[in-house]
Amino acid sequence: MDFMRVAGAQLNLEVGNIDGNRDRIVDAMAWAEDVQADVLMLPELAVTGYPPEDLLLRETFVSANLAALEHIAARSEDVVTIVGFVDRAGGAADDAGHRRLANAAALVTGGAVKGVYHKALLPNYGVFDEDRYFTPGTRCERTWSIGGAPVGVSVCEDIWLPDGPPADQARNGARILLNINASPYHRGKGGEREEMLATRAAASRVALAYLNLVGGQDELVFDGESMVFAASGKLLYRAPQFVEQLFWVDVPLPPPEPGAAPAAIVSTQPLLEGPPEPPPPPAEPLEEEAEVYTALVTGLGDYVRKNGFREVVVALSGGIDSALTATIAADALGPERVWGVTMPTRYSSSGSVDDSQDLAHRLGIRFDVLPIDGVFASFLEALDPVFAGLEHDTAEENLQARIRGAITMALSNKFGGIVLATGNKSELAVGYATLYGDMAGGYAVLKDVFKTYLYRLALWRNRRSEVIPTAIIDKPPSAELRPGQQDTDSLPPYDVLDPILERYVEWDWSVAQIVAAGFDPAITREVARMVDRNEYKRRQAAPGVKITTKAFGKDRRLPITNRFRDDR
Amino acid sequence: MDFMRVAGAQLNLEVGNIDGNRDRIVDAMAWAEDVQADVLMLPELAVTGYPPEDLLLRETFVSANLAALEHIAARSEDVVTIVGFVDRAGGAADDAGHRRLANAAALVTGGAVKGVYHKALLPNYGVFDEDRYFTPGTRCERTWSIGGAPVGVSVCEDIWLPDGPPADQARNGARILLNINASPYHRGKGGEREEMLATRAAASRVALAYLNLVGGQDELVFDGESMVFAASGKLLYRAPQFVEQLFWVDVPLPPPEPGAAPAAIVSTQPLLEGPPEPPPPPAEPLEEEAEVYTALVTGLGDYVRKNGFREVVVALSGGIDSALTATIAADALGPERVWGVTMPTRYSSSGSVDDSQDLAHRLGIRFDVLPIDGVFASFLEALDPVFAGLEHDTAEENLQARIRGAITMALSNKFGGIVLATGNKSELAVGYATLYGDMAGGYAVLKDVFKTYLYRLALWRNRRSEVIPTAIIDKPPSAELRPGQQDTDSLPPYDVLDPILERYVEWDWSVAQIVAAGFDPAITREVARMVDRNEYKRRQAAPGVKITTKAFGKDRRLPITNRFRDDR
Repeated sequence: MDFMRVAGAQLNLEVGNIDGNRDRIVDAMAWAEDVQADVLMLPELAVTGYPPEDLLLRETFVSANLAALEHIAARSEDVVTIVGFVDRAGGAADDAGHRRLANAAALVTGGAVKGVYHKALLPNYGVFDEDRYFTPGTRCERTWSIGGAPVGVSVCEDIWLPDGPPADQARNGARILLNINASPYHRGKGGEREEMLATRAAASRVALAYLNLVGGQDELVFDGESMVFAASGKLLYRAPQFVEQLFWVDVPLPPPEPGAAPAAIVSTQPLLEGPPEPPPPPAEPLEEEAEVYTALVTGLGDYVRKNGFREVVVALSGGIDSALTATIAADALGPERVWGVTMPTRYSSSGSVDDSQDLAHRLGIRFDVLPIDGVFASFLEALDPVFAGLEHDTAEENLQARIRGAITMALSNKFGGIVLATGNKSELAVGYATLYGDMAGGYAVLKDVFKTYLYRLALWRNRRSEVIPTAIIDKPPSAELRPGQQDTDSLPPYDVLDPILERYVEWDWSVAQIVAAGFDPAITREVARMVDRNEYKRRQAAPGVKITTKAFGKDRRLPITNRFRDDR
Repeated sequence: MDFMRVAGAQLNLEVGNIDGNRDRIVDAMAWAEDVQADVLMLPELAVTGYPPEDLLLRETFVSANLAALEHIAARSEDVVTIVGFVDRAGGAADDAGHRRLANAAALVTGGAVKGVYHKALLPNYGVFDEDRYFTPGTRCERTWSIGGAPVGVSVCEDIWLPDGPPADQARNGARILLNINASPYHRGKGGEREEMLATRAAASRVALAYLNLVGGQDELVFDGESMVFAASGKLLYRAPQFVEQLFWVDVPLPPPEPGAAPAAIVSTQPLLEGPPEPPPPPAEPLEEEAEVYTALVTGLGDYVRKNGFREVVVALSGGIDSALTATIAADALGPERVWGVTMPTRYSSSGSVDDSQDLAHRLGIRFDVLPIDGVFASFLEALDPVFAGLEHDTAEENLQARIRGAITMALSNKFGGIVLATGNKSELAVGYATLYGDMAGGYAVLKDVFKTYLYRLALWRNRRSEVIPTAIIDKPPSAELRPGQQDTDSLPPYDVLDPILERYVEWDWSVAQIVAAGFDPAITREVARMVDRNEYKRRQAAPGVKITTKAFGKDRRLPITNRFRDDR
């Protein structure tokens, strides 16, 4: 039986690091020559990193990417390397002159670019803006001949629709579909992808190799988990999630189609002969909490590393959010690069300092206590000319949070670490967070994690090693900004709040739909109002890791000025 | 000669205020009946407000908009009203189920919707994301018969390309083109539009009426300036910029085309007879500084009003930025709704308090002095356990800015006003601004105004009435965060910096291109680096009014994590 040795380089590439990406691609090509691969797959837009966003509007960026492709092509030998890059395209431009580009895959071998494919289906929803930059490909149904075997090449979205270019390529005689990706993670997406890909292979009765990017980029994490399927739809190989992996699989090819359309010749080098090697053992998908936790570790770790920070600063309140944030940071960067600071006031419970200290000790991170009562008092004094005689209210509560924000930022400015904001998705949704206070920071690792889910992650992490003190997990949530305060003074309990938020924010359900599903009308209406009126806070929030189907940020773009109230 | 009485309602509508917009539309229809108009034009997406962004993903939002259109149609009488709304469309949806909508114009008369047009050209560049929501229209070449005269209806972008739907409509016999818009302002755009529209009318030899929205919506200001042209391309009428206007013009129609394609009948009500009335006198376009200043007043005023704030708080530093911000606020809202606060430290010049007080007195706004030396000292004391023995640096400088940010936010929390951030585009570009310090606030009115341009605005404003003290205009720019500090300690002079920024940020020029145009290579390279590495600060900045072709915000979408350095 014919087979093709398909190698994949599931790499963690960097947006804008064109020289660095080029060198990593060239290294992978040398490895693929060593293992005698027929084909090497690299991620979508591997040369530029993904997503490059408006860097694509800079001519020098596009030119540098094309020069890197030339360099890559010049170093190619026997292996046919399929690598994502930005191509210039002749398509119609809008009146601003954009969209003259294509999201492209080059087929390079023997020292030259032998073929170029332009992505046809451009995602322009959710976090994606590909219509802003790219013009869709044409002639996407054609196939390429590698060692006499016709193959189909496509990019990411092209394979998501049942009748996209890969289906046409299979009809034209492709014996294997090679699909390169930069497919961002959300919880459970791996299973959806695997099912979709197996269906595509089986429906077309061709082999299929799917190669994905890995690593964090601002709000996105790419989870890797590249996969290879036989023409039956059977999974041959699955790469691990969230880590780099070089792999190769001898993929059995279905019999050639007698009347197949002619394929553009890329390489006449015959395919390997002899019996195929058995595929390496597939990596098992992570269990759900492990997967989400690893996504957070990857997103934070890459944000910190790729932006050149040495360390992170975390304000430890004694609560679960900051404890989990510090734990994720220690797992992502090592404890020696995490600095925990607790800043108690007269309203802090004695537990908040002791529990934070206990956490820091268990994690092995630096820990300092910087009491802020004096600063708070001096603020009240400074404000006395205008505040005298008025009741304490959220103004004074927020002041405490902002003092803490100013102190962590001072540590950042003085010692160079990046401050991590500790807020979660529930708080950010309803605005139960202080702008420039607990929202201060360069990255908000829990931004897309609901409060109830955060406990699941903490318990899962503690089963590996018990780093988060039970006292922190067990105490009722409190901002501790006034005596005896608890979150439930202002909000419904989180196990009521979070399911409503999930429906309203992530699923775009109406209030009426949520109520019809059995939720309390008054609470649902009030939650929806809180979400709507706090858009201004979210607009100034730090980025964080997307782990759900709809995260705050580029994924959800609402006007701040908005009089629509979904409560009919 | 045949003529058509075309009325326009250049209204300031609100995003999401579907009931309110509906009522304003119905009022305009009653007025149009009174003046015996044949046609009434309302803005693009008048029912929903523009741009509704991801509200379009909520089914209840789309339904409420359709119900409002029904209500509008039921109230229609003899006039044919052309009104923008969101229609459901059968087009292909992406896998997320979106894009089943159309950006539509309804033709309503005699109690019913008589025709619907779907926008064909969907802008998806700059601030626009229309491909995210809408599927393009088809059959856009058809015409509609109103009183026997064929007319062409189109929406905004449709008319920007020379060969778009309006040109087809003219070829099919349209005697007048009716184009409804939500076209956002940038400096000088009015002239571009007028020239483009005159060219379209003359090229097709048909009359043309262009109706634009007015008012502020988050980062955008719509400048109105609706226009009507004869078939010769001659301007018949120009509505004023930035204000609401109801107008009507008796527009002479070119002779009917003998072999014109049949038009869909909308109304058989004959057109007015008798001699046409002369058009009202056209408004003169504002001179450049007046136009920009009015855009800022409109953007700020509408943001504050539409979000329901009673007053604004401005930290007055004694510098030009805060002085101009307070002046614009006083002009937008009235002095009684502006609260100026100055927060001196030991590093503040005596001038900064006196000059601020002088400004406040001239503007007639409330003014308070809240010294912050005590707060600063208490912060240093709180930080002493970790800062002891280290040199003062930007950590201490930023602390002062953050104390001021915390105080203005405390005033906001206590009394309900919105804090205005006072930074300008030059500072925000190079990161010469403190996150959570001078960047704190809900709106940043000067965000898209370069420092050098800001002086032009101040001098222009002072020619109307001298509200900004000369001492403020004449002093060298300083953050006053350490003794004797001046901006030029850290930055090139603004008259060197701003032209480089304009080329790098607004025109996407490369460093090499800027240097080739005669700018200093070392300075240009350093400026480009400062712009690139401060993306993270801009991501957390407040929104502000777009006045240039490329503003920070939705208009310019760069990754934070970005290793590309454009300095080859």
